[in-house]
Amino acid sequence: MFKKFILVLLLTVLGCSNINKTKKPVDYVNPFVDSHKSRWFFFSSATRPFGMVNLSPDTQTEGSWNSGYLYDSTRVRCFSHIHAWQLSGVAVMPTTGEFKGHLGMDAYQSSFSHDTEIAKPGYHKIVLDDYNITAELTATQRVGFHKYLFPKSDQSYILFDTGAYLAHSPTRKSYVEKISDTEIEGWALMGPTRRRPKATFVYFVAKTNQPMQEFGGWEQGVVVEGETTSIAGPNSGAFIRFTTEKNKPVLLKVAISYTSIEGARNNMNTELDHWDFDLIKSDAINEWNDWLSRIEVKGGTEAQKVKFYTDLWHAIQGRRIISDVDGKYCDMTGENPVVKQIPLNEQGTPQHNHYNFDAWWGSHWSLNILWSMIYPEVVDDFCNSMIDMYENGGLIPRGPSGGNYTYVMIGDPAAPIFATAYNKGIRNWDIDAAYAGLFKNAFPGGIRDRAGYEHGPNPKGGGMIYYVNRGYVPEGLEGEGYHKDGAAMTLEYAYQDWCLGQLAKALGKTEDYDLFTKRAQNYKNLWDPSVNFMRPRNMDGSWLSDFKPVGEGFNTIGFCESNSAIYTHYVPHDVKGLAELFGGAEIYTDSLNAAFERAQGNKFIAKHGQHSISWVDYENQPATGMAHLFNYSGAPWLTQKWVRLIKEQTFGDITPYGGYNGDEDQGQMGALGVLMAIGLFQEDGGAAINNWYDITSPIFDEITLHLNNDYFPGSTFTIKTKNNSAENMYIQSATLNGEALNKSWFRHDVFANGGTLELFMGPEPNKNWASDINNLPPSNGK
Amino acid sequence: MFKKFILVLLLTVLGCSNINKTKKPVDYVNPFVDSHKSRWFFFSSATRPFGMVNLSPDTQTEGSWNSGYLYDSTRVRCFSHIHAWQLSGVAVMPTTGEFKGHLGMDAYQSSFSHDTEIAKPGYHKIVLDDYNITAELTATQRVGFHKYLFPKSDQSYILFDTGAYLAHSPTRKSYVEKISDTEIEGWALMGPTRRRPKATFVYFVAKTNQPMQEFGGWEQGVVVEGETTSIAGPNSGAFIRFTTEKNKPVLLKVAISYTSIEGARNNMNTELDHWDFDLIKSDAINEWNDWLSRIEVKGGTEAQKVKFYTDLWHAIQGRRIISDVDGKYCDMTGENPVVKQIPLNEQGTPQHNHYNFDAWWGSHWSLNILWSMIYPEVVDDFCNSMIDMYENGGLIPRGPSGGNYTYVMIGDPAAPIFATAYNKGIRNWDIDAAYAGLFKNAFPGGIRDRAGYEHGPNPKGGGMIYYVNRGYVPEGLEGEGYHKDGAAMTLEYAYQDWCLGQLAKALGKTEDYDLFTKRAQNYKNLWDPSVNFMRPRNMDGSWLSDFKPVGEGFNTIGFCESNSAIYTHYVPHDVKGLAELFGGAEIYTDSLNAAFERAQGNKFIAKHGQHSISWVDYENQPATGMAHLFNYSGAPWLTQKWVRLIKEQTFGDITPYGGYNGDEDQGQMGALGVLMAIGLFQEDGGAAINNWYDITSPIFDEITLHLNNDYFPGSTFTIKTKNNSAENMYIQSATLNGEALNKSWFRHDVFANGGTLELFMGPEPNKNWASDINNLPPSNGK
Repeated sequence: MFKKFILVLLLTVLGCSNINKTKKPVDYVNPFVDSHKSRWFFFSSATRPFGMVNLSPDTQTEGSWNSGYLYDSTRVRCFSHIHAWQLSGVAVMPTTGEFKGHLGMDAYQSSFSHDTEIAKPGYHKIVLDDYNITAELTATQRVGFHKYLFPKSDQSYILFDTGAYLAHSPTRKSYVEKISDTEIEGWALMGPTRRRPKATFVYFVAKTNQPMQEFGGWEQGVVVEGETTSIAGPNSGAFIRFTTEKNKPVLLKVAISYTSIEGARNNMNTELDHWDFDLIKSDAINEWNDWLSRIEVKGGTEAQKVKFYTDLWHAIQGRRIISDVDGKYCDMTGENPVVKQIPLNEQGTPQHNHYNFDAWWGSHWSLNILWSMIYPEVVDDFCNSMIDMYENGGLIPRGPSGGNYTYVMIGDPAAPIFATAYNKGIRNWDIDAAYAGLFKNAFPGGIRDRAGYEHGPNPKGGGMIYYVNRGYVPEGLEGEGYHKDGAAMTLEYAYQDWCLGQLAKALGKTEDYDLFTKRAQNYKNLWDPSVNFMRPRNMDGSWLSDFKPVGEGFNTIGFCESNSAIYTHYVPHDVKGLAELFGGAEIYTDSLNAAFERAQGNKFIAKHGQHSISWVDYENQPATGMAHLFNYSGAPWLTQKWVRLIKEQTFGDITPYGGYNGDEDQGQMGALGVLMAIGLFQEDGGAAINNWYDITSPIFDEITLHLNNDYFPGSTFTIKTKNNSAENMYIQSATLNGEALNKSWFRHDVFANGGTLELFMGPEPNKNWASDINNLPPSNGK
Repeated sequence: MFKKFILVLLLTVLGCSNINKTKKPVDYVNPFVDSHKSRWFFFSSATRPFGMVNLSPDTQTEGSWNSGYLYDSTRVRCFSHIHAWQLSGVAVMPTTGEFKGHLGMDAYQSSFSHDTEIAKPGYHKIVLDDYNITAELTATQRVGFHKYLFPKSDQSYILFDTGAYLAHSPTRKSYVEKISDTEIEGWALMGPTRRRPKATFVYFVAKTNQPMQEFGGWEQGVVVEGETTSIAGPNSGAFIRFTTEKNKPVLLKVAISYTSIEGARNNMNTELDHWDFDLIKSDAINEWNDWLSRIEVKGGTEAQKVKFYTDLWHAIQGRRIISDVDGKYCDMTGENPVVKQIPLNEQGTPQHNHYNFDAWWGSHWSLNILWSMIYPEVVDDFCNSMIDMYENGGLIPRGPSGGNYTYVMIGDPAAPIFATAYNKGIRNWDIDAAYAGLFKNAFPGGIRDRAGYEHGPNPKGGGMIYYVNRGYVPEGLEGEGYHKDGAAMTLEYAYQDWCLGQLAKALGKTEDYDLFTKRAQNYKNLWDPSVNFMRPRNMDGSWLSDFKPVGEGFNTIGFCESNSAIYTHYVPHDVKGLAELFGGAEIYTDSLNAAFERAQGNKFIAKHGQHSISWVDYENQPATGMAHLFNYSGAPWLTQKWVRLIKEQTFGDITPYGGYNGDEDQGQMGALGVLMAIGLFQEDGGAAINNWYDITSPIFDEITLHLNNDYFPGSTFTIKTKNNSAENMYIQSATLNGEALNKSWFRHDVFANGGTLELFMGPEPNKNWASDINNLPPSNGK
């Protein structure tokens, strides 16, 4: 079963100069990496960057975890069109022979083999062995394009299993209608989930390149007898039947919309008005290549390049567009869905897209940095999408689904990304509205007060009353919701306050700056000098008894999917102040280094769901800024060492059985991998006014970052390394634009103007480089 | 011109035992008191308690001030149906002879004389001398009832000048349609105002008791030629023409609604389905009498009784119902008007009414106290109305108009009334929703952040960022809006915080209680011991230079329609703490007493619009708790003295030229007058848990307060005085339910259980009574 995969892997890893010479960035992407335990949205093939349609084979269709495409599965259950955070929809399956649609996927699924399978960005080919059907899939932004080569048969079916359970919850009901011999339309009402509390409509229009012989379907699991032109209700689906020839493929286009059937039809008419499958396939691959080529790398191993572009590819999808091509989208924040219109630009196209996405929790150490460097236009788009929601529902979201709030995780992690955008000059959005919304979120009653999935009318699970009254959130919070972890909230709120302060300062809002900057010091209220850790506090203000820095299970009390050992270092805005609590930079360095020493035996990760057991956990967001902290304590060689080791040991795998260690999380771990690979980071997420990049040891010989000139004046920023290798992981010296650089950071405006950073590498640390305490990166609690 | 008025006045003041024996409370009410300079909503006659329809003659129709019915006017311009805060509508005028409707009110107005005029609660009779028409007006809650005795004429018109300028702003356009020979319907779109930023529809249906001979009207000021059944557009109006006989009155019913024409029709069908004018007139008068009879008084002068019931009458109107009889009302908080439905009770009637009202600013010293004692059901209704708005628009209002926010004045004066309601057991409303809304208002982004009329999307005029950051609001606030007076805001916010703390404590919300109680001490941040006054602070934290406790003009810097001399005493929740700032109770007493000594030459008022010049100003809300403060500093005889003098000198006038000194303000000064007259008060507005009443010297020999048994277990609470007179203003001793009472206060639960307070009066202070420093009323900053 693995033969072909291993062959490709060998060719890839061992390298083949002929192949390499012509390999483009897109050719390095391997969608199968870590796909043995995909989350629903993890595996992608026939999709575009941030695509509304994500068409791919599903081997497991029930559940949000371990679902979608799982590499070790032997059967394909359907090809469905939406693989998104909390969203799914429109399962399609070609079959031949006896009709089994009404019996469900367990009955009509088909065996397949990786031997006859190809998956790449924008394209998937798979053979359904039970039916002898070769299926190829590609997509535009909002239209799935299927090419089915059936055997000769007068019983060739395409099933639209619109009522099937898909991913997150049962489908409530669906509707399909035959419009003509080559067109059907319909919708499915996807049932609510714990995280998405309102049922959500997915509309579709499907066209075939040849007339169907028959339209039919099933309702409540029973085949509709006699002629019919529509099916409706729960547990329903439709089929279209063809008489097929062996060499004459049936082409199928399926357009999606969250606003209406007409929206879906308009998406199809606008994006895909022909039947040239190969053209769309090459368009898709080329579009991916264009996006991926914004970063070019030389040197490194083939495996490192595969992982690099696979990482980058993950970083620009996972979070999906839900607005139509004409800018309509479904606002679900109110009692009933309302279709809203994104303003159009002078060319008559929408000024931005509207997105569905999981929380920004932790993204200040990944997406916020990468996107704002390489894809600033994406940052603009997401900011606008959040402002849409603020204007619709009164809150800047933490992670919305299908146009509604989901309140996943904790805090207001949108504050950092807005601050980063603004402070890097990415400002094509309404700063007044955004600031008003973020400001609201920073006080009781705002989004911070909503614990995970706390959808009720009077949220209190975020403990903001305690935060403003005492300067910390104690344990034992009331209210519904998950993740009511007071210590984690306190630390995250303090950082988010600092981000708001940086935004306020940029806007000349002095008083706001003062207040938020003062509050940003609240992390100190959790510091217990008797244990030298951030320690949760009880409701009466006393320290949590029976304290342990690490524990067992999902989290230790007070910490969100983590523990005190990790969250103690969650002060991205004031590492200097944190180090002082420890007793100074040296003591801090030693303590942090000891944590990495302890964690390296387990590849710097805790098992997913067992986050509390480790001193470092690069499997989950709270720890992902830890290795870069040594730059701030005068020991940059330790950042160089640990980042390199983590990149290789934790994230180096390019098989279907590793690479992300459990949860790539919609681009976050991919983006982190890219940043580690290119040797740049921003401990504060880039939120500071006049923010800077932290330098560490890149894995490639040369990295060329192409800048978007709509935002930044420079053409490229290039990072070159000399004498780089797996052993030579330590920076000996550096130059920036030809001048000696003896500090581990440089400002964003230097980056934006374009230039060259050159790093000279060696096998032993040069402890004189960038360790001068007076030249540490700005680490300002102010 | 004044003959009849003076005759009535003489009869009233001098007293006539025959008349008095049969006089009921309603008979004492004199709508003409202080009507020489009415605000639009001040003068009422044909209306019910809190009535939607307020039908009365208008002598001035342009402007919010000095408009409506002005006693010294000689001409009536129309009879219009709505005299409310920011609302007006449906001007009707009967005329005879040449048609002048299209020429406007200047052309068709008529002379009138007070000699032939009668006005009382629920009824108005007036003769239009130019037309020889006797008009009588009465009303149900939502229907105006007109009775016109025309001369014999075939040119008897009733004009519906729906497009006329009425009160607050020009009318945008209107529409009238003939439905049958006896019915017309229509609407007017009342233009926006500075305080009510959205145009507002007023719908009406009118029926006559006899067929019209003709329907017609004018559009854009020009009479519509030929037959027509409708008129529409700006500057338009309609007429109906009758051939009239001298002794056969034409009856007209006009029903109003803010939701729809059908709403108006349903209001008429439900409330007034017959033509018996005298029945409705007596119903109206009886309803008023029922409400007014909840307080019965004996003793005092006739003038004191006239003023007392006129005060009480004002206290239960001015703020007007805007919901239909079936519970529909217009929610104007969103982009477009939405008709909402108030839930119905088991009898199928609305559980509450929805109101239009000016801000609660200062009402904690008037309406909050009086209503919660005597009309607790009204408090329930208003609380529910505010919760409606919270659910519709996301904010508890300060003073809404026509279903939308108006943001008049400053702060969140709804917090005190909710706290008072809850802490007196008036709880037929959703405490969770109310608390969530009030909580939101107490943080940046809530209603406090909206300065006066600051309707924009990003309000900052309330300075809440400063309040939470520094514990005070400085001067020099940015943002649109009026009344950006930092010192006044600080003092009001501190009191409102304390009210929220009392509510939080009652709800067991310990953390909220702690926070708000701590913030309630913020008043101390304005105390400048170098001047012994509350002193505004500049943006940089320094004291405002060139400080004067009193000044000239509308306000001194930092104070809202007032000055430091007055606002320094605005600490209703912690008089003890305030006195300590002064240097102790005795020094405080002397200082406060000196203010009253200074102010008595000007009858304790500043001229309206010149609020800053006086040391005490009982013409405006900020000072209205001052005279009762001596009870809290151990000198209750000074409260007795000054309250008595203010009641008589400031509020004693019952002519059309005095009584309220400029602005009765929709029941507030009326309610204050009632409280002064009965000798009870609540310095903290009754917001405390287990709150209490402050005792001072009543003006009557016996006052019987009938308790509403839906709320309170007692039947009556009676206040008796012995040896009471104008000279004998000092309490010598007291008993409460027969037991000696040597303190100036008793708890609300004593009141609620019913009982008798007996006060023994004398001409000199008994400084031993109620002055024991250990028995002062609870004055708790906690």
